[in-house]
Amino acid sequence: MTAPSYSVIRLKPKANARAIRRGFPWVYDNELVTDRRTKKLVPGSLAVLEDADRSPMGLVAVNPNSRIFGRMLDRDPTAEINEAWFSARISKALELRARLYAAPFYRLIHAEADGLPGVVIDRFGDTAVVQPNAAWADVHFDALEAALISVTGVANVIKNASGRARSLEGLDDVTATTTGTAPDAPVEVPMNGAIYMADLTGGQKTGLFFDQRPNHAFAASLSKDAKVLDVFSHVGGFSLAALAGGATSALAVDGSAAALELAEAGAKAAGVEDRFATRKGDAFDVLAQLGEEGERFDVVICDPPAFAPNKQALEAGLRAYERIARLAAPLVRPGGYLGLCSCSHAAEVTKFRVACLRGLGRAGRPSQLLHTGFAGPDHPLMPQLAESGYLKSLFFRL
Amino acid sequence: MTAPSYSVIRLKPKANARAIRRGFPWVYDNELVTDRRTKKLVPGSLAVLEDADRSPMGLVAVNPNSRIFGRMLDRDPTAEINEAWFSARISKALELRARLYAAPFYRLIHAEADGLPGVVIDRFGDTAVVQPNAAWADVHFDALEAALISVTGVANVIKNASGRARSLEGLDDVTATTTGTAPDAPVEVPMNGAIYMADLTGGQKTGLFFDQRPNHAFAASLSKDAKVLDVFSHVGGFSLAALAGGATSALAVDGSAAALELAEAGAKAAGVEDRFATRKGDAFDVLAQLGEEGERFDVVICDPPAFAPNKQALEAGLRAYERIARLAAPLVRPGGYLGLCSCSHAAEVTKFRVACLRGLGRAGRPSQLLHTGFAGPDHPLMPQLAESGYLKSLFFRL
Repeated sequence: MTAPSYSVIRLKPKANARAIRRGFPWVYDNELVTDRRTKKLVPGSLAVLEDADRSPMGLVAVNPNSRIFGRMLDRDPTAEINEAWFSARISKALELRARLYAAPFYRLIHAEADGLPGVVIDRFGDTAVVQPNAAWADVHFDALEAALISVTGVANVIKNASGRARSLEGLDDVTATTTGTAPDAPVEVPMNGAIYMADLTGGQKTGLFFDQRPNHAFAASLSKDAKVLDVFSHVGGFSLAALAGGATSALAVDGSAAALELAEAGAKAAGVEDRFATRKGDAFDVLAQLGEEGERFDVVICDPPAFAPNKQALEAGLRAYERIARLAAPLVRPGGYLGLCSCSHAAEVTKFRVACLRGLGRAGRPSQLLHTGFAGPDHPLMPQLAESGYLKSLFFRL
Repeated sequence: MTAPSYSVIRLKPKANARAIRRGFPWVYDNELVTDRRTKKLVPGSLAVLEDADRSPMGLVAVNPNSRIFGRMLDRDPTAEINEAWFSARISKALELRARLYAAPFYRLIHAEADGLPGVVIDRFGDTAVVQPNAAWADVHFDALEAALISVTGVANVIKNASGRARSLEGLDDVTATTTGTAPDAPVEVPMNGAIYMADLTGGQKTGLFFDQRPNHAFAASLSKDAKVLDVFSHVGGFSLAALAGGATSALAVDGSAAALELAEAGAKAAGVEDRFATRKGDAFDVLAQLGEEGERFDVVICDPPAFAPNKQALEAGLRAYERIARLAAPLVRPGGYLGLCSCSHAAEVTKFRVACLRGLGRAGRPSQLLHTGFAGPDHPLMPQLAESGYLKSLFFRL
């Protein structure tokens, strides 16, 4: 039964209704019968999706301004999107995270895979940072926020509107504290025995990336008594984990003075500042300088920004990853370890591995591949979108 | 300079000398200039590999009876394969494992990736189990064994000759204790807080598989207060790790009474036998029976034998993986977890994932993908052979 208040959009006969029935969460604009009426639908409003035979398939959020015209919210076309609906999804998501992590610091909602298309929520203790990166979530933000508070008990909610996806959806970029008070100092985040400082209001996106947690842990397992170099360190993800794992020293390199200050504060909070150093600069330059200085490390990790954020940038991106591998390899002592990461959607793991190997080959360093890691389990994937898992982390022994 | 005592084999002009120079470790028979002399080479003997221009490329072990005619031993064509040579490779391999693991229980040598083509060595405290699965390693077994003992200090060495690859190489299947005394009782192996019992002389291959260690750990991280089902349990890999992770109960299912007895002994050694039960039977049958009985678990893991050991068996193997997913899914409570594993070389991770999803789809269970795992870092890969990483472990939330 269709709730009478919803508009209806209908698939063309040629659309892949089967894929949507099997769980694919998006309806592209060219799959829909569009007319003056559908084009006038308000971004973020709800509609019942019908197949070409007019059978209802579910409730979708629509945005006529986006190539992703419809995002499946509920397989039940009569569902009501209210606080109770949000509570059910957030509760299910919380059950997983509470099971996995001793402390409440994690990605709580990872968009489509957690049943809230385009919505990302990171939790930092009693503060939640919400990124409503699709129009429907902006429209229903109050119900979402009320559910978030009642399910998790967080005291503070920050709406972070800096996501690039928001402009594609025609949304504003006004970040605000919508409940409680934003922490006036960086928040201490415990992970893998280290302490990270997350700047929830001034920082990069949500101030800290939880996705590398299992790869940080792998680096830490290699780092006992090791001299470690962490390039593109941000707030010290790999280096502080390595120090917690027993590294004798760690050097963090980043282009952002603010990120390095937070890394230093994290080292201090964990009492490892005497083994920690930072170096501000362009990572490619610093890698080349360290090579010229003849520096050698037991463990080197490079976790650059997305060099291949889209298909157009893929070839140039892969060359940049190759260059990172080539510049980093000489800094690794014989028998030492090199971790190379990519957060590029477009560079799937096989292509990324080949680029890394080409760089290692140019550096004349044969290697073993020890570990292939992805984002942690608080970043679940819709299996139908599993190819798009963006984060890859490869650890080599040279 | 070529040591005069070695034979010479030469690549055809059309052979892929570049791939070999870049690290590919094998020379196929159809890449070589063969004549009466090369065909008479003794299996396991050494030869210098030359490119088509007669430049030496390295020292290879040859076997004219195998499609893999040559296996690269050393890029130095004058290398001597003696105890010192083995010691250097085993020392490098040991350095990694000693760094990773608190206790000396691991795969010490993983064949090509650790520089000893066709050789597998598993370490169980003061006992090493050596699988010399290529002819050259049989020929040089004494030097290998002497190096193994001097580098690691193990007291006992078992030569396990049951590997299928040995018959392809024309080798015997005579397993023997070559140094010291084989343990007369199963050995206690600590992993992930659990205790496993490894039967080093009567067991399956080397008595215990170390490769799933990180995936066992992931299952354990999901298992607090959970009711767990471990299908194809062997000696209790996932179930005993889950109990160590706080599971309220674990049921291990296997077709082998001997394996289940070892699992029970492991549970007892760890003091968790009151939460542990076993059920002997064909796994497909037991999955169907449990479904009919209406049993539900919080966590279900299926770790079957290789259903697709080679390309010919791929399609049938993928159907078997699909069937496992379809039969296991109904046993998982809503919101519970399903781990599905494959140790099939031929089924690479994308194909395996699609087969699992088809099975979940047939069972009518939408899913999130939480974790994609491979073999642990004591099973390194040659990057040139990385596609052949045989072990995959996918964890879904249903």
